[in-house]
Amino acid sequence: MPRYKLTIEYDGGPYVGWQRQENGPSVQAALEAAAQKLDGGPREVYGAGRTDSGVHALAMVAHVDLEKDLRADRVRDALNHHLGDHTIAVLQAERVGDAFHARFSAVRRGYVYRVIDRRAKLALDRGRVWRVPRALDATAMHEAAQALIGTHDFTTFRDSQCQADSPVKSLDTISVTRQSGDRGAEIHIEVEAISFLHRQIRSIAGSLVEVGTGKWTPDDFKAALEAADRTRCGPVAPPDGLYLSFVRY
Amino acid sequence: MPRYKLTIEYDGGPYVGWQRQENGPSVQAALEAAAQKLDGGPREVYGAGRTDSGVHALAMVAHVDLEKDLRADRVRDALNHHLGDHTIAVLQAERVGDAFHARFSAVRRGYVYRVIDRRAKLALDRGRVWRVPRALDATAMHEAAQALIGTHDFTTFRDSQCQADSPVKSLDTISVTRQSGDRGAEIHIEVEAISFLHRQIRSIAGSLVEVGTGKWTPDDFKAALEAADRTRCGPVAPPDGLYLSFVRY
Repeated sequence: MPRYKLTIEYDGGPYVGWQRQENGPSVQAALEAAAQKLDGGPREVYGAGRTDSGVHALAMVAHVDLEKDLRADRVRDALNHHLGDHTIAVLQAERVGDAFHARFSAVRRGYVYRVIDRRAKLALDRGRVWRVPRALDATAMHEAAQALIGTHDFTTFRDSQCQADSPVKSLDTISVTRQSGDRGAEIHIEVEAISFLHRQIRSIAGSLVEVGTGKWTPDDFKAALEAADRTRCGPVAPPDGLYLSFVRY
Repeated sequence: MPRYKLTIEYDGGPYVGWQRQENGPSVQAALEAAAQKLDGGPREVYGAGRTDSGVHALAMVAHVDLEKDLRADRVRDALNHHLGDHTIAVLQAERVGDAFHARFSAVRRGYVYRVIDRRAKLALDRGRVWRVPRALDATAMHEAAQALIGTHDFTTFRDSQCQADSPVKSLDTISVTRQSGDRGAEIHIEVEAISFLHRQIRSIAGSLVEVGTGKWTPDDFKAALEAADRTRCGPVAPPDGLYLSFVRY
């Protein structure tokens, strides 16, 4: 069966997350239903990772094996057609060899977390960015974040439900930058690693906001990491601002 | 009565437009209802201009006279509270003198029109950008657009329902630029003028897309302007991509 690599954008708001679950609609199940309509039988769609309920993707990567031997752009267009009103779009489909696996072949994953510091509620970006009603110091947040680079025990920034064998992970890069643009001066937290723990980025983002408001110093943030103690984590940031931005192979 | 200048963001999708109308919910009516709840009696909210159904604002400006003499940030917070679930947010409230009029004191208005050229439907930016499923040449669009700068008879780019006395308007600047960023490489058409005709920007945007796809040359675009003939306009662009971006006083 020919294998297709899919690059997928989605608004995670309406879904219980990427992964197929009993308790509600998932992005994976929507794609599998579309693949079944296209190919005439049940098809499994393998994602590069799981995103939580409400988390978005600019470019999730997945793969699917189809019986039909179709041109890749036909697969993209047909999947989009069968997805109907789902807030899921297949940006690209490519033919790949059987050695390609969306999850196991990935060498780096990138996420961006969007925070905006303003008093007024959100009109245009509701559900797409975390609004914090106090001014944030992005420079202090960036400085604090640098403590995360390298290999650490990330117990502080790991959900208690996390099923990974070990809390030790390597973070390649993290940057906190204030944007400029039409949508106001929001802050982007960009992170890259081979893989992440459950709610690791939202835990980091929430704790960095404690630095941004001045409640924590960058040294407090570093001490929280080094304590390897979940109770030292700041409030976990909501899913609204989190986007899987790329997967590299 | 103290006068307050309001800077307002809204998602125009749910509304018949800025202006109060019989046939559905308007941004103006929502703000007036909020002002009435705050001030205890009917209050009129004057906008810097009208936006059509589905058109958005990053920073509409309006003014309102209230009986209550409140701190400006209290007015902002109270209006946002009373707006409830409306996709309308008061970004800023400022006390201004009686000589200030949101419409008549404005000296320049800026709009941005967002177009994205991609095959895949929109997942994250549905209703917020115009998707064109063919590649667009932003450089050719920019070149063509320069013909609009200055004072012209804009009959070609004016809705047949336009109620302005004259089709002659002055356009100060227009630029067409390809963006880069997380959301993909969309194109922004940015225009500035003291005022615009009805559907002028959407008519211009639709015609510039004809240039972008190669159907029209920049010279065809210039000839369409000079013809001063509504039938020479390209397809009018949808409201989804249009944002009032600033009003200057």
